[in-house]
Order: sequence, then C-alpha cells, then structure tokens
Amino acid sequence: MMTDSLPSGFLASGSTCGIKDSGKPDLCLFVSEVDCAAAGVYTTNRVVGAPVVLSRQRTPGAVIRGVVINSGNANACTGESGDRDAHEMTAAVAQSLGCLPEQILVCSTGIIGVPLPMDKILNGIPTAVEGLSTEDGALTKAAAAMMTTDTFAKSLSQSQPLSTGSVSICGAAKGAAMIAPNMATMLGVVLTDAVLTPQQCDTILKEAVSHTFNCITVDGHMSTSDTVLLLANGQSGITPVSDDDVQQLTAAVRRVCEKLATDIIRDAEGAAHFVTVDVRGFATRDQAVRVARQISESALVKTAITGNDPNWGRITSAAGYAGIPFDAAHLSLQINGVTVYKHGNPVAYDEVSLSADMQRGEVSLLLELTGGPASGSEAACFWTSDLTQEYVRLNSEYTT
Amino acid sequence: MMTDSLPSGFLASGSTCGIKDSGKPDLCLFVSEVDCAAAGVYTTNRVVGAPVVLSRQRTPGAVIRGVVINSGNANACTGESGDRDAHEMTAAVAQSLGCLPEQILVCSTGIIGVPLPMDKILNGIPTAVEGLSTEDGALTKAAAAMMTTDTFAKSLSQSQPLSTGSVSICGAAKGAAMIAPNMATMLGVVLTDAVLTPQQCDTILKEAVSHTFNCITVDGHMSTSDTVLLLANGQSGITPVSDDDVQQLTAAVRRVCEKLATDIIRDAEGAAHFVTVDVRGFATRDQAVRVARQISESALVKTAITGNDPNWGRITSAAGYAGIPFDAAHLSLQINGVTVYKHGNPVAYDEVSLSADMQRGEVSLLLELTGGPASGSEAACFWTSDLTQEYVRLNSEYTT
Repeated sequence: MMTDSLPSGFLASGSTCGIKDSGKPDLCLFVSEVDCAAAGVYTTNRVVGAPVVLSRQRTPGAVIRGVVINSGNANACTGESGDRDAHEMTAAVAQSLGCLPEQILVCSTGIIGVPLPMDKILNGIPTAVEGLSTEDGALTKAAAAMMTTDTFAKSLSQSQPLSTGSVSICGAAKGAAMIAPNMATMLGVVLTDAVLTPQQCDTILKEAVSHTFNCITVDGHMSTSDTVLLLANGQSGITPVSDDDVQQLTAAVRRVCEKLATDIIRDAEGAAHFVTVDVRGFATRDQAVRVARQISESALVKTAITGNDPNWGRITSAAGYAGIPFDAAHLSLQINGVTVYKHGNPVAYDEVSLSADMQRGEVSLLLELTGGPASGSEAACFWTSDLTQEYVRLNSEYTT
Repeated sequence: MMTDSLPSGFLASGSTCGIKDSGKPDLCLFVSEVDCAAAGVYTTNRVVGAPVVLSRQRTPGAVIRGVVINSGNANACTGESGDRDAHEMTAAVAQSLGCLPEQILVCSTGIIGVPLPMDKILNGIPTAVEGLSTEDGALTKAAAAMMTTDTFAKSLSQSQPLSTGSVSICGAAKGAAMIAPNMATMLGVVLTDAVLTPQQCDTILKEAVSHTFNCITVDGHMSTSDTVLLLANGQSGITPVSDDDVQQLTAAVRRVCEKLATDIIRDAEGAAHFVTVDVRGFATRDQAVRVARQISESALVKTAITGNDPNWGRITSAAGYAGIPFDAAHLSLQINGVTVYKHGNPVAYDEVSLSADMQRGEVSLLLELTGGPASGSEAACFWTSDLTQEYVRLNSEYTT
C-alpha cells in the first residue's frame, strides 16, 4: 500500500509564494476533478481567523472542489480586511479552476494580527494551480507547504476494503504548538474517493476528530485557526452500503486522523517525550476526557516527565482538580506498566529502573478508577508532550 | 506601624525538626493565649492531604487555640497512616499547650506521597512550643519555617481603625509553584485580635480569598494541600459594631491577603515578570474570572511575556477559548497602557518601545469588552508570572 498516493480524482500541490521570509513553501492546494461532499470541524475559540468564518459557512457542502491553504500568516484578528482577503483567496483559486468561489474552502496558519500579503498570494495562486498533480509525492509536498514550526511534513495514505470494493483515504496535517483540544493550531485535510453524502462526511469526521485531534494537547492553548476538513469525491465508485461498511470507513478515517494527530505530538515544539494518558473506569466519557486533559495540560506533570521523574503525586493531584467528584481511595496509577499508586495508597516500586525506562522518550500513564462515585466503564486516551526549556526558548523567541 | 508584630494574645515560632535535608526551618506554630473563632478555605482538589481533611473538620470553630505547620512533606496521598499522622501532630501540640487535639489545626506542605517522618516532628514539637514568642520577628521566623521552594518569607502586619478602636491583623503565607486558583500549593494564616464569631470569620475569609489567593496562578496546577486560615482571638476587645466596621475589617483582611498572594507571584519559580491581568466589561464576575484565568494560564501568553514580546494575538486568542460567548468585534486590549487591539481590529503602535517597557519586569494587561453578548460591568483581576526556562529547569530537576 502506497503511503503517499492521493485517492482517485484528487490533485495536490505545494509551492512558494513568498509569505515566509525563509523562502520555504507556504501555499498548498487540494483539488478534486469533480464536486465533493465535504464537512469541517473548527476551533470553538470566540476569536477566530477569517478563513474559519468563511469555510464554516461552506460546510457541510455538496459541491466543494478544493481547499487552499497558506502558512506563515493566520489571517486572524485582522478585522474586516481579513474577511475580504479570505474571500479573495477562494475567488482567485476558483477563477483558475473554472468554478465558483463558494466551492473552495480556505485555511491560514501562522502569525496572528498581521494582514495577509495578498499581492504575493494572488501572484502565487496560478503557479500553485499549475503545479497540481495526482502523482505520488504531491501529498507530501502539499503537507510541507502547510508547515509553520513543524519539523517534518505529516501525511499518509491508506486503502480500506469495504463490502463492494476498496476506497482510498489520505490525510495531511500541520501543527507543533498552540495545540489543545477543540483543537490545536492545527490544520488537517482528509480526502477520500468513497461515495458519501455531506451528512455522512460530517458524522464520520466529528467521530474521528473527537477521538484524535481533540485528544491531543501540547500547551492547552486553543488556536483561532484550527480546522479539519473531509472531502469525499466518490471517484472510487464505492458506496458504503451496510452499517458495517460505514463503521469500517469511520474507523479508517479515525486511524488516519490518529496518525496525523500523534505525529503532531511527536513533533511538538521542544518535546523530548511522547506521552500517552489513558484514563479508565469513569461513569462518562466526558469525565474521563476531563481527567485525561487535566493531567495532559499540567505543567508540573510535563516537567516531571521532562526530568524522567515518576513523580506520581503530580499526576494524581492533577486528576483531582479536573472537577470530577471521584473518591481518591479508589484511584490507581501505572507509569509505563509499573503500579505506583493503588486504591489511594502509594506502592513501593523501583524508582531508578522506572526513571531509566522513561528516558526512552515514551511514557504511558494509566489512571484507573475502580469504585466509588463517578466510577463506571468509560475511558479516554490523550496524547501529549513534555514541557522543556527548549519549548520556552522557542516560544519566547518567536516574535510578533 | 510595625510590619512584623503579632496581634495581641498571639504567639508564633519557627524551628527546625529535621524534615528537610537542607537543615532549614520546617516546623511552624501559631498559638493564641485564649480560644479563637476560626475559619478555613481549602483546596477543592479531590485528592487532598490528610491535614486538609482534618482541619476542614475543625473549621469553622469557636475554640481553636493554634495551628501547627510543617514544610518539606505534604502528607498527601499517604493513605490511612497519613490521617493518623495528621491527627497525632495536633495531639502532640495540644498536649504541650494543655488543650484538646480538636483545638489545633494542621497544615503540611512539600513532597507528595511520602509518609511524614513522625519521630522528627514529635521530637521537634516541644522545642517549637518552647520557642513561642510574642515579640517582633516571631512572625517572620514562623513564615520562614513554612517555606518550600520560596526564596523569601512572606508576612506582614497592620492595624485597622474601627469605630470603637483599632484592631491588628497579621498574615503569613508560603507558595512558589503548583499555584492555581482554588488555590495554590499555598498555605496562609491570618491572625487578628478583633472580636469575631466563627461565622464572621468564615464570611470575611471567603470574601478576601476569592479576590486574592483565588486570583493568582503560576502553573494552573491546583495543589492537594492549599489552606488559608483566619483566627480571631478577640484580645483587642474591639468588636466591629456597624456594617461599616465589618466592611473596613473585611477590606483590611483582603489587603493582607492581597499582599501575601502577590508576594507569592513575585516569588514564583523561575519568574522574570510580574503580570497583572485586568479583565473588564463582562456580564458576570464569573465570566471575567474565567477569561482572566485562561489568559493567566496560557503557556503561550507567558512565554511571549518572557520574551518581552507584545504578542497580543496570543492574549486575545486565550480569552477566546475561555468558554464565554462574547463577540470579538467588541474586544479591546492594552498592554502596559498601550492600546494594541481595539474593537476587534489591530492598532498600530510602537512595538520596540512597548517591548522595552516590558523589560522592566512588570506587565499589565487590560482586556475590555464594550458591547455585544456577555458584556456588562463586572471585572476580575488576576496576578500571574511568566514561564521561563528556569521554571522548567526547577520543576524537571525537583525529584520525588
């Protein structure tokens, strides 16, 4: 199975229009040869970039043709001129493709509060359209043009057999900081050649995002620009006909989103540890999510992990302030498979050996509630990074 | 007015019993010659230290005689033996003083999950009781014995004229990280010789804490041990007789708490900037508090301030994910008195000069909502610190 191929009927390009002083690629296009069913999940921030406002109006949609993305400038907090710029970006792409502006979605990522350099973008769009390709490599090139502080391009492609034949699904994403649930400074685009309705796209995407992009956090800061889009152009000719087909397809989209989301955490700014936070035994998924998120966002948990320190008191105390009325006497915690706290009591363990294991850079926390109020059978899994001096250096030196 | 005197009828001591490897003071006593009305405000964490459980049972109280505090070990996540140890600490102090265990409150701060070294504490209590003094200097000495990673002792004393005469109020606090609203790894003790009922103590303390200790945040991590206590022994003979008297006294207690709370922020681990976050124009105080807190806890806002960068997009976007349905078109922001964002639009300003001003180490943010949904006349003021490489170094090297 190819890992960098586009589903049938999709083209992509990544090019440089000059937004970034570095001269790196900053303009990205995903286009379908035919109209797509499309859905989007967006930041819930009250302060949003103009592209979010515009794309939100256009999804779910039945006649979407493509997505234009620029990196280096988020077109957020840019007032009315920002709204005009976002609209103009889609109009310019539509003109080159021969479709309507309303058929194009738009995303921008980068610095906040600075007007887009529209001359550069408008000059760059014809080149970006000319560069559109169906070939292997185009997906990665497009993903690279979405990057801001990312150190590697994040994309993958896979096929999924359904009862009447196989469909292809690919995805590309960016994000390395300002990463928080609902969502990150992250952009994601998922393309499939399955035959789907806009409503199916919406349901599948929301389900996938709630278990993946909404379960990652680097610094708890929800961005103004977060967007994940799903476009389905039907060019495989394969329709999910049974409930089982829909479940298989949903699971495949979720797997693509999970790989992209965890790649964002692996690329988290300054991170030295990849951390999985598994919370089990709560009455509702929402409770498990809140506990997992509180642990994942604690600066003290993160810095302990930075120091390879199995400081479990920081973890249990972070769980304790998530606002869930559990009884600590029923709480247990494992770090990398080692039980350090059981039913509210410390457990003796080999601290030196556990700390050495944490130095591998992978840390798994398993927090389990086994009785008392708020206990049940729901779980949540979060992914996060540690907090390093390098994160602080990067984010205190990145200037407006 | 003396800044280190105890109110009439109170004694204090700070001594060393050997909990800390450093040999620094770690045992602190505040005692009244007569029974006190007393109240407490405690962490709302579900995972709490044994001393919190015990002191919570004993407040509000009418016959409290004193408070025993150890630093270096939080007696939290220590199971049933932790409960016994907390009780035994109060019993040992009560025996030395000739009162009942129930008349003594207890606090512990320091490492989580390690049993208290009770032999050292029980050996140290008679010395601590012998050291009790009414003299100037005793308050600071007691405050020093509460310190963990604090770099200076936090205490003050002041008098407050009421309609029938003056009362004295003093306070001592500790805290330098794991600082979050509701509350910090912070302990605070406020003593007054005013004549108050337990119910009055409770009301006055809650009011004071909600505007001071609950409005500071270093790292958003709510501790298992946070406690603020107010003891009133009536030895001034002055009773607040009018509503005006009660208001004056409440304001005085709030001023003492504000000084202690802001001292905690000034002493925040690794901090290079003292940040005031003033949020105005919201419909309810709770909304203003949530916005102020979200800004104060953003790692991206903090690191921008570390770098003396007036990166206002990080500030407005943090406000945007506080969960308050405001309209960004009515939002304005000043940094150190300079308007950088007005009614949803960026404002041109002298970035070099503003950045130079931020280098003084004091940063004031004023975020104002002037119309639309969620607007009104309520405000909140938070105090926070920046996030530095030194914070990360300190918290990744502090081991269990």
